[in-house]
Order: sequence, then C-alpha cells, then structure tokens
Amino acid sequence: MSENVAVIGVGHSKFGSRKDVNIPELAWESIKPALDSANIEQKDIDFFVVGNAGVWSSEAAIPALMAEYADLAPKGSMRVEAACATGNAAIRVGYQAIKSGEADVVLVLGIEKMQESPNPTVIELIGRFGSYFWEFENFGLTFPGYYALHGTAYMMKYGATEEDYARVAVKNHYYGAKNPYAQFQKEVTIEKVMEPKYVAWPFKLFDCSPITDGSACVILASEEFAKDVEDKIWIHSQGVGTGTANLSRRSDFTSLESARYAAELAYKRAGIDMDAPYKYLDGANVHDCFTAPEIIAYEDLRFAKRGEGVQLIRDEQTYIGGRIPVNVDGGLKAKGHPIGATGVSQAVEAYKQLLSKAEPGRQAEIKHGRWLAHNVGGTGHYSYVTIYGLEKLKK
Amino acid sequence: MSENVAVIGVGHSKFGSRKDVNIPELAWESIKPALDSANIEQKDIDFFVVGNAGVWSSEAAIPALMAEYADLAPKGSMRVEAACATGNAAIRVGYQAIKSGEADVVLVLGIEKMQESPNPTVIELIGRFGSYFWEFENFGLTFPGYYALHGTAYMMKYGATEEDYARVAVKNHYYGAKNPYAQFQKEVTIEKVMEPKYVAWPFKLFDCSPITDGSACVILASEEFAKDVEDKIWIHSQGVGTGTANLSRRSDFTSLESARYAAELAYKRAGIDMDAPYKYLDGANVHDCFTAPEIIAYEDLRFAKRGEGVQLIRDEQTYIGGRIPVNVDGGLKAKGHPIGATGVSQAVEAYKQLLSKAEPGRQAEIKHGRWLAHNVGGTGHYSYVTIYGLEKLKK
Repeated sequence: MSENVAVIGVGHSKFGSRKDVNIPELAWESIKPALDSANIEQKDIDFFVVGNAGVWSSEAAIPALMAEYADLAPKGSMRVEAACATGNAAIRVGYQAIKSGEADVVLVLGIEKMQESPNPTVIELIGRFGSYFWEFENFGLTFPGYYALHGTAYMMKYGATEEDYARVAVKNHYYGAKNPYAQFQKEVTIEKVMEPKYVAWPFKLFDCSPITDGSACVILASEEFAKDVEDKIWIHSQGVGTGTANLSRRSDFTSLESARYAAELAYKRAGIDMDAPYKYLDGANVHDCFTAPEIIAYEDLRFAKRGEGVQLIRDEQTYIGGRIPVNVDGGLKAKGHPIGATGVSQAVEAYKQLLSKAEPGRQAEIKHGRWLAHNVGGTGHYSYVTIYGLEKLKK
Repeated sequence: MSENVAVIGVGHSKFGSRKDVNIPELAWESIKPALDSANIEQKDIDFFVVGNAGVWSSEAAIPALMAEYADLAPKGSMRVEAACATGNAAIRVGYQAIKSGEADVVLVLGIEKMQESPNPTVIELIGRFGSYFWEFENFGLTFPGYYALHGTAYMMKYGATEEDYARVAVKNHYYGAKNPYAQFQKEVTIEKVMEPKYVAWPFKLFDCSPITDGSACVILASEEFAKDVEDKIWIHSQGVGTGTANLSRRSDFTSLESARYAAELAYKRAGIDMDAPYKYLDGANVHDCFTAPEIIAYEDLRFAKRGEGVQLIRDEQTYIGGRIPVNVDGGLKAKGHPIGATGVSQAVEAYKQLLSKAEPGRQAEIKHGRWLAHNVGGTGHYSYVTIYGLEKLKK
C-alpha cells in the first residue's frame, strides 16, 4: 500500500481534427512522452487504464489494442467511462490501484477520436449522456440545450449577460493561443464571440467547446517507486459525486450539486479551508464545456460566493495574476474536448504548472504548490474534483 | 485503508430475455436484495461502480440513471468495461476503492440488456471486442468463429472430440436446471447437443452461451464496516492480464496467455500452490462462453496439466464430488451471459457457495473455504481471476 501516489510522467497529443492518425497512433503520441518523462519502460508498468467514452469509434477494445500496439501485454487493463469526466475517472482507478497496493506503477491513458463520427450523429451520441429515455428522447435536448438551461437560469438569477459569458471565451482563447497542443490557437474578442448566430440561446459558436480528437497520458507511481524521480507531483485528494439522470429532478440550475459535493470531499481530504480555497491553490482547470458552466464552476468550487462568480471574470480575476488562474491552457473551450482525454489533460496541466514547465505567457505563479482539476460528465451527472500538490500531503 | 475487503451482500436478477423490464428496473432486481442481505441502506454507500459494456443499449449513462432511480445520488460513480470481463473489472474498482481507504462501502452493479439490439447487430457489436480494424473488419470473424479457432486447435493437438465439448454443455445445463436465476433450466443430453447444425465448426447451438439480459449486484465493505456482519466472504486476491488485440499475434491457440498470467498473479497473492490449486479450492466459476474454452480454462487455471483438461470432463471431475466443481450454477452456457453482469454473478455464486446457501442439488462441499472466479473478455483480450475466501486471507 502507498499512502501517497505521484504523477511521475506526462504526455499530450496535439488536440484537434486528427484524421491524420488512427486510434493507436494518436494514443502513442501521448504514451511515448509519458514513458520518456517518467524515465520508465513498458515492463515497469503493472496495470493500465484507458478513459474512453468511445461510442463514436469503430474500435471497442482500446486497452487490448494498446496492449498490442504499445507493447503493454500481458499487464492487466480496463476501460472506464463517466461521460465527459471519463479522464478523471480513469485517474481515480489508477490512483486507487496504487494506493491499495495492487500496483506500483499505472499508466493512465485518456483518448477520444470523435471526428470519425459524422455530424449530427456525434451530437446525438453526446446527448445520450444525459437521460436518454426521458429528456433526450422526448424533448430532443442535446448538450448546448442542457447547459443553456443553466446559463439562462444564472442570467435570470444573478444578472449575468451574454457579454459576461463571452469574457470566458476571450480568456480561454487568449491562453489557448499560447498552448501548442490546443485545437484553437487564436485569440478572440468579445465582439467576435457575440457575432455568430445562436446555437442554443444564450450560447453562440464561441461559447461552445469543440468536437475534438486527442489523447493525454500520465504515469502514476507509488511513493517507493517515485522516491528517486526528480520531476513529480502528488495526488492530494479526490472527491466524486453523481447527479440525477433527469435535470427535472434537480433543485437548482445555477449550480451542479454533484460538483459541490465532490469539491467538499476533495477539500476536506486535502485539508483545504472551504471558505477561501483559492488561498491554498495556485490555479485550477475547470470543466468549461460551455462558457457559462465555467462561471458556475467558480461558485461550486468556492472561488466566489453564490452569484459572485460572474464578477470574477468581469474583473479578470481568473487570469494569471488574479485571485486564481483558471484554464490557462485554453480549457475545453480553446484547447478542445476529446471526452476521454480531457480529465487526463487536466492532470498533465497540473504537472506542468506545479513544476513550472508551462509554455511562455501561460505559467502561473507557484506559491502554494497546489492545483485543482474539476471534470464534469453530462450536466453534473458525474463530477470529479482532484487536487494535486508539489509536495506530499501533510497529515 | 482496509487490507481486507468483504462481500457483505449479494443480489441477482432472473437472467434471460427480459423484455418485461427496462434497465433501471432490471438493475433494481439485484440491487434491492443486495442492500437487504447486507442489511444496509443507500446512505451507507460511499461509491458505486457499474459494469456495463452497453454498446447495444440506448441508455449511455447507467450510473447516473441508477443514482436517480435507486436513490444513490450524490455518491460518486463510474462505469467500467473490459468486454466480457466487465463484471469482474467493476469488482476490481470496488475492491481497490476500499483497500485504498477511499471508500468503506461500495455497491458494484453488473448489468446488460442485450436483447434490445436486433440480431445480427448484437453479434457484430460483440465481434468488435476483438480487433475491429483488422481481424473483425477484414475477415468477418465473430465470437463463435474466434473461439472455434481455439476449439479446433485443441482438438488437433490433444484429440478432444465434439462429443467431449458436448459434455461441458451437458454438465452446465444439468446445474443450470437447478438454478432458478438461470436463462435455461433444462437438462440436455450429448445426443441433443450433437443434433443442431454448426454455428462455427465444431460449435453447434448448445456449445454457445446465449444472448442474455440480466443484472447482478454485490456490496463490498471494509474490514471495519464488515466486522459485525454475519454473512460475508472476503476477496483474497485478484490477478489481471491483457492479450494482444489480434489473435494472429498469439503464439498458442490451446491456451489464453492473459488468463495464465492472471491466474499466476491471483494464486501467488492468495498463497495457493500453483502445482495443484484445486487442493485449495472448493470450486470455481470459469468463463464458458463456449464449451471448448471451459476445458482450456481448466488448464489455464492449473486444474489439469496441458492437454489433460478434456479428461477432467470425460471423468466428470468438474461435477460436485469430483476434483473441483466448475460452473455449478450453470455457467455462462446455461445461466446466461449478460456481459456486464457475468463477472458480478460469479461473485454472487462464490458468496452463495462459500456460505452454503446454494439451491438444492448444486451446493458444493465447503472444506477449504475458497472459491475462484475466472472472467475473460474478448478472446483472452482481458482476463480477470479473483479468489474469494470464507475467512480473511492469512498472511
């Protein structure tokens, strides 16, 4: 058993439209640098877990495929899925495998190849990650619509405007432009975001995260294995919550209850004061599948009080130098959102930020040595919050 | 952290063609008795994991669906998949969650509703759990064909006959007839098995496990939580292995390398002598998706030497009273094979057998207090071997 679990290596593919590669090739783009940065070989790996939603791919057996292609057989494996929180769910399986003593070194791969699936099929398939039988099938809601319900509720209750949501896109595109792995590397202005037609009011094109192909990989290791590794970070805690399948069963559309629950668990276990957790964190990645949910995430994570999240983005408090830098890799919005890879990509970002290895112009100041990742599946159907630290967690 | 993890409650739906229920109703058929037998309520559960392959179902978000229907929100959850070993993979996630100290009580649900999908679509979808891109797409192999390659190789090398394979069906239908949860509760004779036309030589209808709807559920708990629970068994060890995606990359068709690897790990961790593990076990459930692989499993699990597995079934040594009773619940063959539920159903069987709660005529003699479950995904793409014990593992 290993009380502490380290991230000892990371890899990240270019996110975007990756019709130039097949699934194993796309996976290898992140596996290879992860093995190299951890300075290990395949034989050192005890177990591997693949985060992949995969309903749009022809290949159903990606762990077996990678066992062969990346020479990981006969080591054990599985695939995990929690809708758009799939990547962080995969990290949880790796984390627990090591913490339980069942493995010393685990490779966690997050991968999705979504552009294989023709539009609008991919939109329908994503839509099923809510409640298929009732709200999806009967009302025809897809994800822009699901989250627009939250976006409009927040506008009604707290006076946010479409321009406020646009500010989130402007920030995330600003940092995406500095991230060579991002799908979109172009800055946008508020005017540019306001220009296109509505996808689902109040969301326009630039309020939505894109359909993305990509992979990300982390190598997790026990305290014993990690002791001689120079570049590493630690998993301090994880909190997980599940929401109801039907949004009509929720009491509140200006918050995701499962995310608040997951955050509470994670803060408690990491010894972080829930009144002002930003005083303990150097930055965060939150699940900005649309612009409005980034603001809701500020509040669910207690970076701001209820109703005051919108003020954070107005005041540029989630830029580097502000109260807490958020999504300074571009977020789902500009970096892209290959579903199974997103949560793993957040871990890669925590590693790079905490070790001050982020690209020029997007490195946060590291004072507290802690970074938070918030990964949401469906519309709060699954919420995973993971806190990473530069040093081991002090008990 | 909990060095020892217990199974404190179990539930099992009727397996078969379950067009009378939808997915949450089918799940509840096993969740309810699992909660009841563990004598707990939903609030006691810290985390739940769903084993579900699910490519044939409309519903993509079964954990969220069950969070609502079974009142498990806001507790954390995820879905796991390892083809036909999905159920045991889900148990692994629950096991590690408790052993790592991240949870005290975990609900593990295995569920599949396969008859929703029209034939031959379901056969194609199962076929993708090999290597889609190469062997499935180019050669058109589906699972009867994949395993027939193994069945014929074993016949050629060791002189097994079609009648020998029929003996496995005869045994498993014999016990299935005594299991009220089984899909097929009718005995068959060798002559009956030999009668139908070939599905894929040497397999005929009764050599194949059926397409099944069903669910199974176990409640896992930490040593501390389980201490006052009367009826419980313990997880002694688990071994996991992965095979190559393409069968053409395998060196041997009379064995599944990943299963041998998983068995070695499981025996070693449970302190069981690999020369004669059957001397430590009261019985086993093996992955008899077809008749021939049950015989291959005897050898991969070291119940017999290489080439001698067939003699075990000829001599009725895997009936109750023989060397080691195998699949005395009917196995996948007669009980049915709802993919995500199968590995969990094996755990339910281990609980019932070790606690001497099996139905009349199919209760094995419990002398050693250990039961083995062998769950294979694809054609050895994923192998999971779990050993359960009536007492805690002595170190």
